[in-house]
Amino acid sequence: MLKPLSDRLIVSVEEAGEQQVGGIVIAQAAQEKPVTGKVVAAGPGRVTDAGQTIAMTVKAGDTVLFDKFAGQAIEIDGQNLLALHEKDVIGVLA
Amino acid sequence: MLKPLSDRLIVSVEEAGEQQVGGIVIAQAAQEKPVTGKVVAAGPGRVTDAGQTIAMTVKAGDTVLFDKFAGQAIEIDGQNLLALHEKDVIGVLA
Amino acid sequence: MLKPLSDRLIVSVEEAGEQQVGGIVIAQAAQEKPVTGKVVAAGPGRVTDAGQTIAMTVKAGDTVLFDKFAGQAIEIDGQNLLALHEKDVIGVLA
Amino acid sequence: MLKPLSDRLIVSVEEAGEQQVGGIVIAQAAQEKPVTGKVVAAGPGRVTDAGQTIAMTVKAGDTVLFDKFAGQAIEIDGQNLLALHEKDVIGVLA
Amino acid sequence: MLKPLSDRLIVSVEEAGEQQVGGIVIAQAAQEKPVTGKVVAAGPGRVTDAGQTIAMTVKAGDTVLFDKFAGQAIEIDGQNLLALHEKDVIGVLA
Amino acid sequence: MLKPLSDRLIVSVEEAGEQQVGGIVIAQAAQEKPVTGKVVAAGPGRVTDAGQTIAMTVKAGDTVLFDKFAGQAIEIDGQNLLALHEKDVIGVLA
Amino acid sequence: MLKPLSDRLIVSVEEAGEQQVGGIVIAQAAQEKPVTGKVVAAGPGRVTDAGQTIAMTVKAGDTVLFDKFAGQAIEIDGQNLLALHEKDVIGVLA
Repeated sequence: MLKPLSDRLIVSVEEAGEQQVGGIVIAQAAQEKPVTGKVVAAGPGRVTDAGQTIAMTVKAGDTVLFDKFAGQAIEIDGQNLLALHEKDVIGVLA
Repeated sequence: MLKPLSDRLIVSVEEAGEQQVGGIVIAQAAQEKPVTGKVVAAGPGRVTDAGQTIAMTVKAGDTVLFDKFAGQAIEIDGQNLLALHEKDVIGVLA
Repeated sequence: MLKPLSDRLIVSVEEAGEQQVGGIVIAQAAQEKPVTGKVVAAGPGRVTDAGQTIAMTVKAGDTVLFDKFAGQAIEIDGQNLLALHEKDVIGVLA
Repeated sequence: MLKPLSDRLIVSVEEAGEQQVGGIVIAQAAQEKPVTGKVVAAGPGRVTDAGQTIAMTVKAGDTVLFDKFAGQAIEIDGQNLLALHEKDVIGVLA
Repeated sequence: MLKPLSDRLIVSVEEAGEQQVGGIVIAQAAQEKPVTGKVVAAGPGRVTDAGQTIAMTVKAGDTVLFDKFAGQAIEIDGQNLLALHEKDVIGVLA
Repeated sequence: MLKPLSDRLIVSVEEAGEQQVGGIVIAQAAQEKPVTGKVVAAGPGRVTDAGQTIAMTVKAGDTVLFDKFAGQAIEIDGQNLLALHEKDVIGVLA
Repeated sequence: MLKPLSDRLIVSVEEAGEQQVGGIVIAQAAQEKPVTGKVVAAGPGRVTDAGQTIAMTVKAGDTVLFDKFAGQAIEIDGQNLLALHEKDVIGVLA
């Protein structure tokens, strides 16, 4: 199990094409990087210069829409994952 | 439904040409990206390093004028949308 | 009517050539962007990370001199306007 | 009359060659931009993020030496002027 | 023995290919730099401008996943090591 | 007389070759800019965003060693001078 | 004697090849800049915007490992030295 640090998020990403999320259809151009995914694990939040931890809004289980070119692809146990920072997330799909 | 994070805004964008907004005509060069749109959803506001949330000025339903090259195009349920940050907004058209 | 956000200013810009402002003649090279204009609308001021709004110095009706390459051209109701930030303004012509 | 904003300075600039300032000779390479000038008007000072105005050191009437490539040339009433920020000033010639 | 400063980490890096970490298989493209490694030594934490030390989350003995292009390769006693900052770490593999 | 502002320093610079400073020989490659010089005048110190003046460490009369490419060459009364900021100074030669 | 300012360090650098430091062998590629050296003199520490001096961790006599491309080469009394900032130091070799 991977425990993200700070404001890091690990997201499992769907392939390009159309995703249905709670009845919402997200169009995703094939050649572009995925823009949605399910949060697999979330860090505790970033620590500011005042030593304060800013709680995360996003949590494991959320489906998120994020900036097109954000994150770094990683593969764990054969699963396609993306390492993001919370500031890369546009919103949560409910 | 998409719930934006932080100071994010989701704006439905009109096509180029002229928009009438409350009697105000906004000229929009065809080849350029749209500069006006209606706010579909707004985040809670950015959280500062002091852990304080800075309330948003813009809210869902407002028609806004924004910086020409701001934002990222997304398509949800076949609708042309733009993901912006509030700092990209020039003003609200009333 | 356009209500600017934050420290934004909407300025109506004169054409190149010479402007007379309260007896002051401002030379303006034809090929360059305008450097003076009348403030049509001013925002409430920028909000700092401490959540404090820094009041604006410039207000609607002022004629201002601003940095040559500042701002973004917009056209509203056929009027040539420029969207600036207050930090782009050099001074107020009185 | 031009009232500068924030930490802005308006300086009347001498031509290249040598300037005598209170007995001090400043060499000024002809091809380079002027590096000295007389302060014609000074702003109130910059406003910090804490909302505090940092008083200016330089005032109208001072002759200043400033960074070579600083400032923006403007012409008002046929007079060659330069718009600077106080942080561009190296020192005051007394 | 090397005592890292500030938020520095010294990590012993595995070769490319697959790593098994507590049953988790991390795929690692051969031609790319390693992305996982074992923390050999950790600094006390970064000191903020307020003079406060922000404690480290990562400690010696942890196996970490880090940003692909982070860190600087060093060799001590023939051992392949990488000098990282804690902000380069995505998460701890448990 | 030139009164530097903020954390500015005016340093009289020696020619390339070797300088003897209090018995210390500083090698100075001919083709490179001078790296040592005597402080002719020092500013009061930089003013922080909190409005506090950070006192200078360096004072007139000190001989200093500074970063190779720092500063701006000026000539006053035929004397070769360099305008530096205190942060460009490596140390004081005693 | 050279008294470094702020968080500056003066380090005497060994030639490329292998260094033995307290039994630790540091490999050093010949063509690259040195990465280890002995601290000859250390500054008092950097002064923050709050006017606070952040004490140094590294002191004269320590042997340090530092970032490969950090620092500026200087020669004093024929001795090869490097001027670093403490933030360039990876760790202290004990």
